[in-house]
Amino acid sequence: MSDKLTGGGEFDFINRLRRRENSHSTTATHSPLTTHHSSLLKGIGDDAAVFRQLSGFDTVVTADLLVEGVDFRLERGWATPRDLGHKALAVSLSDVAAMGARPRFCLLSVGVPAARWRRRFLEEVYEGVRALARLHGVAIIGGDTSRTTAGVVVDSIVIGEARSGRALTRGGAHPGDQIFVTGTLGAAAAGLKVLESRARARLTKATRALVRRQLRPTPRVEWGALLGEKRLATALIDLSDGLSSDLAHVCRESGVGARVEAELLPVEPLLKSAGLRSKSAGLSEGEALALALDGGEDFELLFTASPRASSGLPREVGGVPVTRVGEVTGERGKVRLVVGGRARLLRPGGFEHFRRDRN
Amino acid sequence: MSDKLTGGGEFDFINRLRRRENSHSTTATHSPLTTHHSSLLKGIGDDAAVFRQLSGFDTVVTADLLVEGVDFRLERGWATPRDLGHKALAVSLSDVAAMGARPRFCLLSVGVPAARWRRRFLEEVYEGVRALARLHGVAIIGGDTSRTTAGVVVDSIVIGEARSGRALTRGGAHPGDQIFVTGTLGAAAAGLKVLESRARARLTKATRALVRRQLRPTPRVEWGALLGEKRLATALIDLSDGLSSDLAHVCRESGVGARVEAELLPVEPLLKSAGLRSKSAGLSEGEALALALDGGEDFELLFTASPRASSGLPREVGGVPVTRVGEVTGERGKVRLVVGGRARLLRPGGFEHFRRDRN
Repeated sequence: MSDKLTGGGEFDFINRLRRRENSHSTTATHSPLTTHHSSLLKGIGDDAAVFRQLSGFDTVVTADLLVEGVDFRLERGWATPRDLGHKALAVSLSDVAAMGARPRFCLLSVGVPAARWRRRFLEEVYEGVRALARLHGVAIIGGDTSRTTAGVVVDSIVIGEARSGRALTRGGAHPGDQIFVTGTLGAAAAGLKVLESRARARLTKATRALVRRQLRPTPRVEWGALLGEKRLATALIDLSDGLSSDLAHVCRESGVGARVEAELLPVEPLLKSAGLRSKSAGLSEGEALALALDGGEDFELLFTASPRASSGLPREVGGVPVTRVGEVTGERGKVRLVVGGRARLLRPGGFEHFRRDRN
Repeated sequence: MSDKLTGGGEFDFINRLRRRENSHSTTATHSPLTTHHSSLLKGIGDDAAVFRQLSGFDTVVTADLLVEGVDFRLERGWATPRDLGHKALAVSLSDVAAMGARPRFCLLSVGVPAARWRRRFLEEVYEGVRALARLHGVAIIGGDTSRTTAGVVVDSIVIGEARSGRALTRGGAHPGDQIFVTGTLGAAAAGLKVLESRARARLTKATRALVRRQLRPTPRVEWGALLGEKRLATALIDLSDGLSSDLAHVCRESGVGARVEAELLPVEPLLKSAGLRSKSAGLSEGEALALALDGGEDFELLFTASPRASSGLPREVGGVPVTRVGEVTGERGKVRLVVGGRARLLRPGGFEHFRRDRN
């Protein structure tokens, strides 16, 4: 059996975590944007956690499994345990944001091989989780820890809330809606390239920033909550697989098509910085575009909005800009990319585990 | 990135699962014992699942991580993928029952090495989950799948509901309360011994039944829901680590002690069957008692009840009996076991990952 985060486990770690989390859970920072309506009745320390969602709100829940050697690496120069905790939570916060909901609680299941089963490793993972959780007023309310025979695994579960009936799915886009993305695109994939190609010691300021986008992505929590609360979007998704894949999901679920203008895409400016392609050169225009379209893990939000809502969108939320990149068409299931005045069909080219293996 | 159960994944598997689960979720069998008040708004097929918990109910959530080579084995003669799915869900259903709550939804994160990444393996795991889920009216609403570099991992998340303020913790036992356990004790640990000691081909009818208790434990869902709904218990826990450990949790959380009568313990009668100790002999009295006290994974419920509530308890629920095994004392933190008229201190002797490793 695993060691449930029940306070009854054999490890001091769990009791320390329990004391810390349960004392925090009443002091979580509250965002001025919304009033929270769920309250924690029992956090870490029993067979399960208990919370109360008052009426007028729906509950949103997601789980994301990250696996060592597949989703992250822990060797020197790659992710630290703290990075891992941050990213695991970020991925699930992003999913909740992608429903137009506000995150409230998280549970974390962590599997660790015996060789890493020393107090600091687990604590550092939780420190990464905790720092990001506090930033968004999210309480750690449970989870599980277990030994593994090889490799670290983290399953991150985040529970959020949306006003009743206001959760935003991938399925509401209409022809004529405008398509928007938050932030910039391609940075996380470029950061992965940097990690794969060189030792961290040789990083420049620009490549270091890209690596950080890969290891410590920033979920668009405030954007997500705003879009849901004010019903500004018709469809919403987060860019985990890459724009070409994720926009295709929206089109399929909404029964529509899309037309994206390459020159409108907010390609991350750092992709042109020296050190990415060679010591002195950045990526070419084409390479940068490919990363912006197909590179995964940016965890920006992509959403569609009616022409009317589009004109009323804030330009930025918490310093994160939004950019119009195209519009929804009636050409069901087809995503077209316009480059230099010519439209071509854009196929999903995002990250896929097994396709990658086969290459 | 992993392949979220979003319907947008690359694998037919996810789309098939989505169609199947989403069509089931409206036809889940409802128990006559209670009226369900949560409704599923969005199941598998988006960034997250959405449900509505109507007022008057609290939400309970638990996560359990099972790891190949630690919590289960998949070699011939051990767990089938279907057993694994069953057990992963059973463990979390048991946690929800241990809060006096009724399970409603589950999410399942499954990591699978490339060598097992064939359609049937994952499907069979889900079939095990699904069969048990349907039995209890639980809908599969999400999760994640990922490749691993070695070994299968399953994180099972179950969400349940309890009438507001009626969730039962480990912390409510009072001196003078009676202590009860459901079902029988020691079978799962005996089943593990059988698996560790011999080939499945040599199993007798009795040892086969014990192996089944290890591989396919039955969570006490109806007992848990009843105890919570009718407020029959003062404290409640499930026996995952073993009675000696789990009763100690209750005592610590409640600030009480306990006195257990060895002769009252419902030791599983099959432990005396031939084939367990040798071809012709079963376990001795002492060996059977040790398994009943320290053997983990029975997933029976242990609860305390006031003398008044005790006298009104049903003798069984759904064919599962309940047995009084002792009483709560004011001797804070001390669990005493009475054997043959003599009381000795009972120390937690349940399953521990790392203690086991060290031996």
